[in-house]
Parts: sequence; structure tokens; C-alpha cells
Amino acid sequence: MPRKTSRLFRYEKIANRIKQLIEKGTYRPGDRIPSVRQMSEQQVVSISSVLQAYLQLESEGLIEAKPQSGYFVCAPAASPLPEPEISSPGLDPSHVNLHDLMMMVMRDTLNPKLIQLGAAMPNLELLPTERMNRIMAGLARKASKGTHQYQLPPGLEKLRVQIAKRAVNSGCQLSPSDVVITSGGTEAIDICLHAVCKPGDIVAIESPMYFGTLQIIEVHGLRALEIPTNPRDGISLEALQFAIEHNPIKAVLTISNFSNPLGSCIPDEKKKELVELLTKYDIPLIDNDVSGEIYFTEKRPLVTKAFDTKGLVMLCSSFSKDISPSLRVGWVTPGRYQNAVEWLKFTLSASAPTLAQMAIAEFMESGGYDHQLRRLRREYAGNVSMLSQVVTRGFPAGTRVTRPLGGFVLWVQLPENVDSLDLYSMALKGGITITPGHLFSPTNQFHNFIRLNAAAWNLPIERAVERLGRMVSELVERG
Amino acid sequence: MPRKTSRLFRYEKIANRIKQLIEKGTYRPGDRIPSVRQMSEQQVVSISSVLQAYLQLESEGLIEAKPQSGYFVCAPAASPLPEPEISSPGLDPSHVNLHDLMMMVMRDTLNPKLIQLGAAMPNLELLPTERMNRIMAGLARKASKGTHQYQLPPGLEKLRVQIAKRAVNSGCQLSPSDVVITSGGTEAIDICLHAVCKPGDIVAIESPMYFGTLQIIEVHGLRALEIPTNPRDGISLEALQFAIEHNPIKAVLTISNFSNPLGSCIPDEKKKELVELLTKYDIPLIDNDVSGEIYFTEKRPLVTKAFDTKGLVMLCSSFSKDISPSLRVGWVTPGRYQNAVEWLKFTLSASAPTLAQMAIAEFMESGGYDHQLRRLRREYAGNVSMLSQVVTRGFPAGTRVTRPLGGFVLWVQLPENVDSLDLYSMALKGGITITPGHLFSPTNQFHNFIRLNAAAWNLPIERAVERLGRMVSELVERG
Repeated sequence: MPRKTSRLFRYEKIANRIKQLIEKGTYRPGDRIPSVRQMSEQQVVSISSVLQAYLQLESEGLIEAKPQSGYFVCAPAASPLPEPEISSPGLDPSHVNLHDLMMMVMRDTLNPKLIQLGAAMPNLELLPTERMNRIMAGLARKASKGTHQYQLPPGLEKLRVQIAKRAVNSGCQLSPSDVVITSGGTEAIDICLHAVCKPGDIVAIESPMYFGTLQIIEVHGLRALEIPTNPRDGISLEALQFAIEHNPIKAVLTISNFSNPLGSCIPDEKKKELVELLTKYDIPLIDNDVSGEIYFTEKRPLVTKAFDTKGLVMLCSSFSKDISPSLRVGWVTPGRYQNAVEWLKFTLSASAPTLAQMAIAEFMESGGYDHQLRRLRREYAGNVSMLSQVVTRGFPAGTRVTRPLGGFVLWVQLPENVDSLDLYSMALKGGITITPGHLFSPTNQFHNFIRLNAAAWNLPIERAVERLGRMVSELVERG
Repeated sequence: MPRKTSRLFRYEKIANRIKQLIEKGTYRPGDRIPSVRQMSEQQVVSISSVLQAYLQLESEGLIEAKPQSGYFVCAPAASPLPEPEISSPGLDPSHVNLHDLMMMVMRDTLNPKLIQLGAAMPNLELLPTERMNRIMAGLARKASKGTHQYQLPPGLEKLRVQIAKRAVNSGCQLSPSDVVITSGGTEAIDICLHAVCKPGDIVAIESPMYFGTLQIIEVHGLRALEIPTNPRDGISLEALQFAIEHNPIKAVLTISNFSNPLGSCIPDEKKKELVELLTKYDIPLIDNDVSGEIYFTEKRPLVTKAFDTKGLVMLCSSFSKDISPSLRVGWVTPGRYQNAVEWLKFTLSASAPTLAQMAIAEFMESGGYDHQLRRLRREYAGNVSMLSQVVTRGFPAGTRVTRPLGGFVLWVQLPENVDSLDLYSMALKGGITITPGHLFSPTNQFHNFIRLNAAAWNLPIERAVERLGRMVSELVERG
């Protein structure tokens, strides 16, 4: 008797296990499940137990045997539509923390039903996606074995040469060996912080600051000191100097050209003063130049690195905003921290994807990148201007809005009594996603601000911005 | 007069600047340099200053004007061979720190003149490089715009389905939503440590432990407690329990299947005990299964995750060792830390490269991965055995060597009086690279050990291993 019970138990266990794997979506309709022999070996049970389990599953209509082929998962009686990968949860954002809020805003981008004014995603319609696909297809066809080896730091030389060449336009004299390729621009910031700070250290940041950078600062256990920042000309040098004189600041983080979210651009002469100030105090500057090429003026603004005499400026950038977010290629010029950054890049993620590095190098070499950037600048300048006009026209009195000369985001200050989390909830219900100001400060300085993404512009977006304006008015009245 | 001096100075400055960019390799023979007008705008100097600079450079034979095209960098009189990207420095490794030593060992892999017994690089000849190139070329040809969007965590669903399916063979019931894709396996470990430890925490590790993991622990500011580990059956549970009872251990790190460098494999029953022990104390286990599929026995060893009842096992792996190191795709099953890991993945590097995820999913779906693994297991089993025989035959008395049942590295204990850094220097001079044992312990437990990579086997390698044996004998005698 005990043996029989035990065998029954085993067969049920196996049947249940497979049912669960079918429910979870690991085994899907049409998939072959392990053979009787494989399952018997895997689970160390007898062939007959497995057979019994499979017969049971067959009788329940969950699997079917195909002669000479094995057992397959059946299609359900009425085949349901594929389930959405990530839901747009009806959570009340005021009850979620900033991590969850950030992930919600990012995941909103996967919901094609929402009008996308939230995450600062580039407009895929304006990116050279087909061209990059052709280049990658061509490279993959003729690629050799060697391209499958790790591309150890500092990364693909061909790409570093192109980056160093291009840097001349922004006022830098770089050698290809001054550049380290990273797996996207975010990783570049992570590595720079590892190179110059240890947990507990204080870093000075522009305020408001892109929330992704704030969350890296949090992961590193650093303390962020928010420095007042002007929407036109960026971080206040007077306030920064005062902060430096009164705090052991270990690094300064800026987005000196077309900040996200402010759109501010530090004038070149002021960049020089910023670097001189930090040089005087021997403090490294981590400057994110991801939007530096997207200027609406006649000339590319210089980069802080152009004024760096002591190797203190760690200029970071990436190709995610102007070529493709999915290639995962960024870079940094680490100055005096070159060795540390190369070691950290290897230690934290070994290397960046090779084919993507090759493709970007080819695109730059061919002149395609220049052409692409000219198009982006023209289109984004137009979109930012249109969005700005509709906000100006449609939002209630008391609203203020930035007038950026580059990039593709607007920063909108709503009347004081409006909480942007309320607006976020309301907008989401109305099919619109925005980014609440809460995310841009570790001390919640911007509860009545929102960031709007101007990467795309069309009539439905225009209507959505108008609706958003009416929602703000409603919240003002509710006050 | 002052104006003239100033103009002379400017033209010289511009000429020198371009000379430097040519010397640094930023501008190379055949490259077009910025036009006179561009340079004048960039540097805010007069057209005539730039013209004077260019004439000067032309007269020095550094650049040449081409009608209707602009100024180009000339080829040097006698065109030198391209310079090697990274030198094999004649540094005495005993005077370098462990960071530099690790980077030296890794960079040795780029030197085609060296016999590669050092870094645990997979053998590219045995990887499906052509097949992956064809798949990627095909995917890139038909890819849509959407594939250029960020693949937010947890990553490409198609790939997570394949990973969850495959996990059944190693004893796990996973749903695709239990898996988070990372930019390689190294990043998975970095993220897991961020999720469960803060700086100053103590983590227990197998000893010896793969140096890459030790260096991540160092970056995180953690303290590593080395637990005795048997070359056959892995970490000592008695010692681990003792350590847990006497220290506030926040995580345990293992490579339970075919450890690097030991080759040890924790028997399945002992894996269960390990997980039960950690469950009792509520301590997470970060288990790197990167070699779990490369077994020489009849059956795949199970993974610790198979025994996880409380979501404490964070199983990490990657496709760098069995498909391609350059695709940069790894994964982790974070258990109860799922939300934290997804947030960290987004915060630290946004997403993993999309095309590579698609290509690996297709390769797995097609059955190509199974075929590839069968080949790798057969070849590596043979290579490990050959290498082991030659070490046994050619190394002096007092040498000990592991007998791994999977993976592709051997761990060799040399006679006590041999310092493996001396052997590393000597071997490098003789055209061979090895990994000194110093790298595998934060407290230098393994000064007389070396790790040898058995990924490839041929006559030159056999001869090199014999030479290495003679070098060891020489060092023993010198001792």
C-alpha cells in the first residue's frame, strides 16, 4: 500500500508541475514538453509514473500525443488574445514610492494607447532605424569570428576615433585613447560616480536634475546637494561656490547643454568659469552631454571638457537619443580617472556590444550621423516650439514654461496649489502620460512642476496637451 | 604691433592644435580636416589666421589641399605599420596592484602572439559565430522601428520564455516573468549585490573565487569572508554555518556548478542542504551558473534555485561562454528581489541590447543552442582531459591539479615555494599567458596556484604547457 500511495503522489506531482508551467506561460500552445524518458530522468521517477501523469494531462485536454514526435501543449478551447506584457495599473501614484513612480512612468511608454508626453524617449520616426538595420545586417553578414570576442575597455577603436574627431566641434582635443565606450550613457554616469565617490559622500547637482541620475546617486548611497539652477543659463556658480566652501563636495553633476528637464544651457564663457572653479577646489565634474548635439541655435555649444586643464571633467554621452536607444552604446572621457574607469567598466559589465559599436562607427564615418543630427535639430526645434505655444495658449494663468534652445523636453511650472501627482493620475485616466516634478528632486522641490516630452508632434498630441491644460484648470479650481 | 603678434599667435595655436590631433590619431592620413570657415567659426578667429595655419601645415607636408574638396591629412613619408592597440608591457607584475594585474591578464587576450592559457575566454572556434551572424543579419533586415525602442526591464519576453523553458532541465519551475535580462552575466552579479547588500556588509564567498566577482565586491565596499571550498563538492556547509553563526552575513556568493577556478560542483543533495541552511537564516544566495550547461557527465546538474522555497536564490547566468561574449546578454532570476532588480537594471543601465536578445531567442527556439551545447561539452571534456594529462606529465613533483566534471578551466597548485607571479612574468616572456592565483583571493591565499584555460587544444598549446612545466621546475630549484 505505501508504495502505491507514493507512486500516485508522484504522478500527481508531475502532472501538477506541468500544469503550472503551462499556466505560467513557460510551456505555450504548440510547444513540445519533455519526453517521458527525459522527465523520468529529470525527476528521478519511474517511466510509468510519468506516463500516468501524461495520460492524465491528455484526458484533461491540456496536452496531446503526436505520433513519432512526443507530447505537445494543446491550444485552449477558445484561444484568448495574447495578454499585455505589462499592465497600466490603476495605482494611485501618491501611494507609491519614487522607484515605483519612475518605473510606472517608464512602463507607460510601452502602452501604445497612451499619448506619450512622459518619458524623454526620442521619436523613433525621426531616428535612422532603417539605415542602422541595413548597416547592422551588412556588418553581421561579413563579420568575422573576432567580432564575437569581448571588446575590452576602452572599447572599439574605430568608434573611439570617430568620437574623438567629432569632439573637435565641441572644442575638445581628444585622442581616441581618451575615450572609454560604455553600455549606454546611464552606465557612464554609474561608472564615473564609482570612480570619484564613496558611499556617504556629498555630490552637488543641478536642481532640478534628471531622475535617472538621482536614482543612481541613491544606489551609490551618496548625498545630493541641490544647487539652484537657472532655466536659461544653468547652475548658479555663486551658489555652487558657497556650497563647496561649506561642504566636502566630492563631485559635481551637470547636464550643461540642454539640461533634462530644464533645457538650460550654460553659456560657453560660464562653462569656463565653472571648470576653473572646480579646478581651484580639485573637484571632478561629471557632465552629461547627451543632448549637446541637439541645438536649435546656429552653433554647437562647447562642452565643459573644452576648458579642462587638469583632467577633472568626465564628459559622458550616448547615442540613445539621436541614433537608437536599443543599441546600448555610450561613452565617457574620464580625464585623470582613465585607469579607474577602464577597470570599473571591465569589472561591472566587461564590455559593450560589439556589433552596435561597429554600426555606429560606420554610420558616423559615412557622414550619416551629421545628416541625421541636422534633421533632428530642425524637427525638434519645431516640435518644442509647437508644444510651447499650445501650453501657453491652453494652460491656466500662473503657469510658466521653459524656452529651451536645444533638446526635446519642456519643464512646466503649474500654479502652486496643483500637485503634479494628481495631474499624473488624472492624465493617465484620460489616456495621457506625463512626468510629475516629484521625480526631479530628492527633497521634493517640484511638486507643482511637470516635464513634457516634445519629441513628437501631431494633431492628437496637440489635442492631448489642450486636454491636459483643462485638467490643470480643474485642479486649480478644486485647489 | 600688438595686433600682429596676437594674429601670429593665433595661427600658430591653430596649426599646433591640428598637429596634435594628427599625432594623437584623431585625424588620420586621408581624413578631411574642418574647412577654413568651420575652423574660423569654431575657434572664433579670422579666416586669414586659419588660412595662414593651413598654409603652414601644407608647407610642412602634414596636410594637402584638394580642389573643391578641402584639406586632407597626408600620408607620412614612410607609412608605418599600424600601431598595436594595447602593448604587452614589460611590467614586473609583483609591483602592480590587483586591478592592474587583472587588466593585464585580460589584455593579454588581445595579443595574438601569446598562447592563451590565461583569461577564461571561450574558444571562438567552438562558438556558433557564423550562425549568430546570419541570424542577426536576418533579424536586422526585417526588424521594425519598434526594435529600436528601449527594452525595459525585465527585457525581451521571447527570450525570457526560452530561458524559463530551459530552466526545467535544471530543476526549476520558472515563469518568464521570473527572469530579468541583463547586459551580460557580470552586470547580473553587480545588480544582485546592490539589491541585497550595502557598503560595509559581509558576504560569504567560495574560496578561491573568480576574480571578477571579487572585484565587484570591492567596488561595492563589501567585506568578503572566504569559506573553505572543496575542489570536488564545493563550499563547506559546516564552515559556512559556523561563519553565519559568528558573523552578520548578508549574502552568500557561489558558482555551484563548475566553479571558476576550482571546477567544483556541489552535488544536488548538498545544494538542497545549502539552500535550506540559508533559508533557515534568511540569507540570499547569489549563484553564478554560467558554466552549468557545460557538464561532462550524463546529466545536467540541478541548480540551487531548484530548491528555493522562499525566493532567496538569485540565479545568474549569461550566454557569453556558450554563444558569444560580444552580444552582452545575461540574466538573473531575482526571486523575492524581483522589483528591486528590475528597478536597479533600469537605473544602472536602462536596458540590454535588443537585437542580441532577439538573436539568442531565435537560436534557442530553433534548437541550435542544444546542438551547440552538445558540441561544447564534448570538445571541452576532451580539452580539459588533455591539458590535465600534460600538466600531470610535465609539471614537477608536488604539483596538484583539479579534475573538473564541467567548465573549461583547471586549477593547479604548484609546489609551496613557487610564487605564481614569478611564473606569470616568466611565462609572458616565453609567449604564454596564465592567470596567477593571487587574483582569486582578497587575502592572497593562493600565491602558489595558477588557473589554466582549457578552451582550446592543439600542438602549440601542448608544447607551451610543457614549457610552463619546465619553468615551474626552474622556479622550484631557484626557490
